Amino acid sequence: MKVNIDRLMKDIERYSEFGKTTDGGVTRPSFSHADIELRKMFIDELKKLGLSVTIDGAANIWGKRKGVGNNLGSIVIGSHLDSVPNGGWYDGALGVLMAKEIMRTLTENDVFLDHDIEIVSFTAEESNEFNLSTFGSRSFVGCLSADKIRGVHNSKGKWLSEELEKVGGGLGEFPKMKELRKKIKAFIELHIEQGQRLEDKNISMAIVDQVAGIYRSNVKVIGESNHSGTTMMDKRKDALTAAAEMILEIEHLCKECMNGVVGTVGRLDVYPNATNIIPGEINFNFEVRGCTEELIKNRVNKIQEKFNDIANKRKIELKQEVFLDQKPVDLDKDILSILQSAAVEMDEPYTILPSMAVHDAAHMASITKSSMVFVKSIGGKSHCPEELSLHSDIEKSGNLILQGLIKLDNALTKQTI
Amino acid sequence: MKVNIDRLMKDIERYSEFGKTTDGGVTRPSFSHADIELRKMFIDELKKLGLSVTIDGAANIWGKRKGVGNNLGSIVIGSHLDSVPNGGWYDGALGVLMAKEIMRTLTENDVFLDHDIEIVSFTAEESNEFNLSTFGSRSFVGCLSADKIRGVHNSKGKWLSEELEKVGGGLGEFPKMKELRKKIKAFIELHIEQGQRLEDKNISMAIVDQVAGIYRSNVKVIGESNHSGTTMMDKRKDALTAAAEMILEIEHLCKECMNGVVGTVGRLDVYPNATNIIPGEINFNFEVRGCTEELIKNRVNKIQEKFNDIANKRKIELKQEVFLDQKPVDLDKDILSILQSAAVEMDEPYTILPSMAVHDAAHMASITKSSMVFVKSIGGKSHCPEELSLHSDIEKSGNLILQGLIKLDNALTKQTI
Repeated sequence: MKVNIDRLMKDIERYSEFGKTTDGGVTRPSFSHADIELRKMFIDELKKLGLSVTIDGAANIWGKRKGVGNNLGSIVIGSHLDSVPNGGWYDGALGVLMAKEIMRTLTENDVFLDHDIEIVSFTAEESNEFNLSTFGSRSFVGCLSADKIRGVHNSKGKWLSEELEKVGGGLGEFPKMKELRKKIKAFIELHIEQGQRLEDKNISMAIVDQVAGIYRSNVKVIGESNHSGTTMMDKRKDALTAAAEMILEIEHLCKECMNGVVGTVGRLDVYPNATNIIPGEINFNFEVRGCTEELIKNRVNKIQEKFNDIANKRKIELKQEVFLDQKPVDLDKDILSILQSAAVEMDEPYTILPSMAVHDAAHMASITKSSMVFVKSIGGKSHCPEELSLHSDIEKSGNLILQGLIKLDNALTKQTI
Repeated sequence: MKVNIDRLMKDIERYSEFGKTTDGGVTRPSFSHADIELRKMFIDELKKLGLSVTIDGAANIWGKRKGVGNNLGSIVIGSHLDSVPNGGWYDGALGVLMAKEIMRTLTENDVFLDHDIEIVSFTAEESNEFNLSTFGSRSFVGCLSADKIRGVHNSKGKWLSEELEKVGGGLGEFPKMKELRKKIKAFIELHIEQGQRLEDKNISMAIVDQVAGIYRSNVKVIGESNHSGTTMMDKRKDALTAAAEMILEIEHLCKECMNGVVGTVGRLDVYPNATNIIPGEINFNFEVRGCTEELIKNRVNKIQEKFNDIANKRKIELKQEVFLDQKPVDLDKDILSILQSAAVEMDEPYTILPSMAVHDAAHMASITKSSMVFVKSIGGKSHCPEELSLHSDIEKSGNLILQGLIKLDNALTKQTI
């Protein structure tokens, strides 16, 4: 039994028409016109597959195929259908559409599992106007409460609570998610890698063992604005040259660490930002990601030491505020073993990798056995129209999940895991 | 014969009321309400001193005290009355009000010179909304033509030509400035140093021998935007870390040069400027100032070499555009000698310094013998409410110009210079 890759690729192309951009990408944030239209079609198609569709409070879409066991609960497969502005065809949609393809394959082959199998499409996984990425999965697992969401609006004054209602969700339905959670026995998400590790190893797919933690801090570098002509070099308290040293230290300290830590300054603003004025203040965010708390802590401490040295040497002031300190998440070891043995049986090479990006699976891990499979990204490109994964790699990863699903159903029924 | 420092300081305080800010600074750009009101009072006061007042096409205000010689032309003293937003009391106003004080001192003492002595207050010397700093002096010397100015407006859609008419100038009067220029035999400007060189040397004043040249270039650093989590450190083309190296090279290369060169990155913008995206493009301006063309060229070449090394090493692309290449200007050596001998006679210590900022005197040098005197700035502060020079230092510099003026009048009459 194998997934039908041609049928899946047609789905991916068909879904990419919703929010299609002039350069071939997709702009489909949750609650946009494109998202609303696509949700209608998706729900229709789930129903045509014979699935029973429900929409929860966070407007996550669920499509259930009943199992033949005695009310054993659900194994869930899926991802998200929203995209970043001018993103690609695969980030999110691949995981949802593969779940649909797996459902179709099971049905065509008259294979019934003991557990209910559910597709999920989570709402607003990507960074969005409401500043709540992975909104759907975080709401579902109880990490975002109705009270928290009640006051949230975007810069145009649109309330998240009202947007939810437009697509079948609503804060009133939030308490019910507590009951829904209890029925879930496992979750598997297929996603593109978004990096170049698989390409470097020339391997089609990876089973994900953990999701990296993220530390983010806002740094204000306070020097002294002054005339760029009359202030000699030795009299300056240039906040930008100080920040430049700090940025290079972050890069250096993360590069020298061989354990897959990454560090980035992505946002930086200069004040007053005029050609003839020495910058008096720099405001930047830096981020460190790594797979253990110790690794992150170690790098952040070393970075902090360097920051202090630079501030002392240059007689500038630093004000810092940590605004995210998300711990690394271990994904489920049992499902990992099952997927490994499925790969071995299929004679398909695979590797084990941590995920350096956060995914819905990381949040699902707080309520159920959660797992992920990565498929190779070409050139590591993502969040852009050039995002690409090869048909042959996608096919292999789909079959891995299909075979793994059958094994997982069996293991859960027999309570061997 | 000496200037009356108390009377001058009262003038400075009185003038600072026009455009006064809540923290004690002055916001008085040309054509603002504060500027218009101050112009009226200034013109009134010049008339009360018996000066004949004219306003040229660029709305520069001139007040002439007739000489007793046979139509020998004018020696001009002055500076500007406009300020930067929330600037200080001294930048510009000191030079104009000292010129007024010198006029008063000459009259009180019944001293008449052979040449006409003129006060000038130049329009819009500071950086302004029309992107034309030293507008008044550049227009007067013929460097800015009426044709050039005709199309100039600020971001609010106000036309510079109409603003000029509000304060007595006008493009129709521009051709006449050609004749006015011919009558000018010398120009002396008193200004605050705006740096800390005099304070470091513990000397009250400096005679300025030259005005530094300025080289400005816009640099686009083009790397590759990518996910800050999934893109490993060795796969990045981070435009910001590349720019950080470039910024530190500018600082290093200007610091190591012991000849008073300064180099600055004052403006820098990051794209897309999001915490979780590796910056794909940085756009920054850099500036190098120095007192000889060779010095500037040498530093710029070395900076350029480093830029290329960094671009090659990091596999990023650079696009550069030089948007200013202003040569250094020598001020008049004869007036310098005259001011030196005046200082020696007064037994006042002085030093000789280049000006690292552009002043009206640099443009006046293209049409007449032009000179400057700097008075010590406390803490090197300028363009801020904390701008300060001491009464005793100001008094010395005023008397130096007064004595220098008398010697200069004599030398010009006798044609010894």
